[in-house]
Amino acid sequence: MNQMGRQARLAADVLRSLSAEARSEAIRAMARHIRAEAGAILAANAADVGAATAMVDRLLLNDARLEGIAAAVEAVADLPDPVGAEIARWQRPNGLDIARVRTPIGVIGMIYESRPNVTADAAAICLRSGNAIILRSGSEALRSALALHRALAAGLAETGIPAGAVQIVATADRAAVGMMLEGLSGAIDLIIPRGGKALVERVSRDARVPTLGHLEGVCHTYVHESADPVMAAEIVANAKLRRVSVCGATETLLVDRAAAPVLLPRLAEALQGCELRGDAGARAIVPMAAAAEADWATEYLAPILAVRLVDGVAGAVAHIARYGTGHTEAIVAEDPVAAEAFLDRVDSAIVIWNASTQFADGGEFGFGAEIGIATGKLHARGPVGPEQLTSFKYVVRGTGQTRP
Amino acid sequence: MNQMGRQARLAADVLRSLSAEARSEAIRAMARHIRAEAGAILAANAADVGAATAMVDRLLLNDARLEGIAAAVEAVADLPDPVGAEIARWQRPNGLDIARVRTPIGVIGMIYESRPNVTADAAAICLRSGNAIILRSGSEALRSALALHRALAAGLAETGIPAGAVQIVATADRAAVGMMLEGLSGAIDLIIPRGGKALVERVSRDARVPTLGHLEGVCHTYVHESADPVMAAEIVANAKLRRVSVCGATETLLVDRAAAPVLLPRLAEALQGCELRGDAGARAIVPMAAAAEADWATEYLAPILAVRLVDGVAGAVAHIARYGTGHTEAIVAEDPVAAEAFLDRVDSAIVIWNASTQFADGGEFGFGAEIGIATGKLHARGPVGPEQLTSFKYVVRGTGQTRP
Repeated sequence: MNQMGRQARLAADVLRSLSAEARSEAIRAMARHIRAEAGAILAANAADVGAATAMVDRLLLNDARLEGIAAAVEAVADLPDPVGAEIARWQRPNGLDIARVRTPIGVIGMIYESRPNVTADAAAICLRSGNAIILRSGSEALRSALALHRALAAGLAETGIPAGAVQIVATADRAAVGMMLEGLSGAIDLIIPRGGKALVERVSRDARVPTLGHLEGVCHTYVHESADPVMAAEIVANAKLRRVSVCGATETLLVDRAAAPVLLPRLAEALQGCELRGDAGARAIVPMAAAAEADWATEYLAPILAVRLVDGVAGAVAHIARYGTGHTEAIVAEDPVAAEAFLDRVDSAIVIWNASTQFADGGEFGFGAEIGIATGKLHARGPVGPEQLTSFKYVVRGTGQTRP
Repeated sequence: MNQMGRQARLAADVLRSLSAEARSEAIRAMARHIRAEAGAILAANAADVGAATAMVDRLLLNDARLEGIAAAVEAVADLPDPVGAEIARWQRPNGLDIARVRTPIGVIGMIYESRPNVTADAAAICLRSGNAIILRSGSEALRSALALHRALAAGLAETGIPAGAVQIVATADRAAVGMMLEGLSGAIDLIIPRGGKALVERVSRDARVPTLGHLEGVCHTYVHESADPVMAAEIVANAKLRRVSVCGATETLLVDRAAAPVLLPRLAEALQGCELRGDAGARAIVPMAAAAEADWATEYLAPILAVRLVDGVAGAVAHIARYGTGHTEAIVAEDPVAAEAFLDRVDSAIVIWNASTQFADGGEFGFGAEIGIATGKLHARGPVGPEQLTSFKYVVRGTGQTRP
């Protein structure tokens, strides 16, 4: 494992000084090799699927899904390259010219579970941002991940990039995770966990290097008394039901008590097929199951919605501060003063006015690709795309200045 | 301690929604109370100094130094407030308007050693950036820190800000540090250590929450063969000798082998009073002590300079990659191609062309104040001022958009 760390560090030094176009070429070559080696990848995946006892759909690849993976990698080749971009530049009174310039972070460790696409997505996004990556797939998807990695490695080799740029831990031995969390003797700059809550919690707790994790998305949509009822029904239905398994899906609906008799029946009608669990106020208006305390803190990832009446923006903000996970919250309102107060006072990665919480996605933000959504507040917050996987340095240009 | 954490979290919620002017008023009130309580602060400091066995100068306060502390706090009140600033804003094809807006981080834990000014500086910078702070002073400066904190608390009370905004651990018990490093049950978002290498290493190793530390500044100045000899001598002398105890002081001088016979004697002349320790090449040109391997990795913080001949930019970059600490490195050169290659290829927080490494300072960068210089690459890098103590959130404004 330490040897992998050293190889990654050496490769990171090479990646940093490559041109953006050279990195794009390598990413395109990786996509070509994924297509060329589809047979081997699908065969490896079939073996994983055959051995799987759960989450088979997350694991399963077929021609269409594999083409989707290759196309997603290819799309990353066309994204703007963040490395070397000037974020800011200013002059000091003494004539010093100071620029803040994006740099790669260095070596990223990615620890993930059963989705095979993460292998390719993470490699492409890291290459785009000039970082080397060490991948550690869950054991249930290891054959698929290794087959995908062979294709990625062939793409690197074709374009003359060191194999250390994209490496994978070739064993299901859990000790490898522990070694990565220790940082491989200083070789890993950042660990990104991607998977269930148990994995992310373990990584956040045990890692000796910085992590960028996404814990839970207990997302809220708050319907203000000034809401347009038609818009509110469309947004709430989309926020909950478009896809119930994504982290940006709304899990709790908050409705203004004053307008609930008018709004809630229309919202419930739009939510047909969804189990509602309400507080006493909500149940007095629309028949539904009773919510328990635990419901307010649950990420269902299922067609279930907790429903609570609140008193105005202050009530909504207080509920979210208590039960939210800092991911994504929306307000539906025609009143701009109420909406701006909500946007200002809710401290979540993404706050939304009059749109669906399911827009919480790097692609929808225009980042082109994402490696996850960060719910911490340090370094990156919200969708993590290539730009969020960079650091920066200050470049100071002088004409002989000395400090008095 | 956990009670302190809860108070800090509640205060952070208040600070976040205060106006910039309210935070400025509180900072000014803190400065007034430092001046008003000068007698008590100096008496407490005299007791600390009386008990001290080492580092007395770092610890000592007098009228002038205390006025300096008050003036530095006051200056922070006039800095631009980072909270709420829009970092970026763009529109998506579906009409969504997305803004990236600065927010406070929340609660910062500051663990420091014997400099009393850190107590006031850190409190002012955290208030400016909307963060609550929990201070933990070294035991040798605890009386001074507690007296300063009483003045800060009086300033907060006068302006109606909760006392939880600026708290100090009132005991020298080392267990308190351990509890802070555990995060006080989730109450601390970020730990900033400020002190010697042992402290920073311990904090980085043991903290369960993110840290922003400054480990060491083994800074380099590289004199390229194209350098103007007069400028090179002025810059090198300033970079080493202006103040030898600051982290931006140059510790190793690299000189191009090709031009060393001409350049090195002039540089040595400008460095009179400084002990030189050179490699064989340097010693063949100017008589000096022999450098040992350890010299290349030593932060002297003293009038000692390691000197090595290198072959061109590639040689300088390779030496810095091996021995540098990622803090600050400078090149002196008239050749812009060589200079830009150096600026591009050296991966340090600050890279400088034709100016002194001693400009590595938040004040010199125009940040107004700094709480330290971060040598890590995550979240902040280089001088950490109020802006670097913020996170951000995405504010999305729609007109009823749902996601297809």
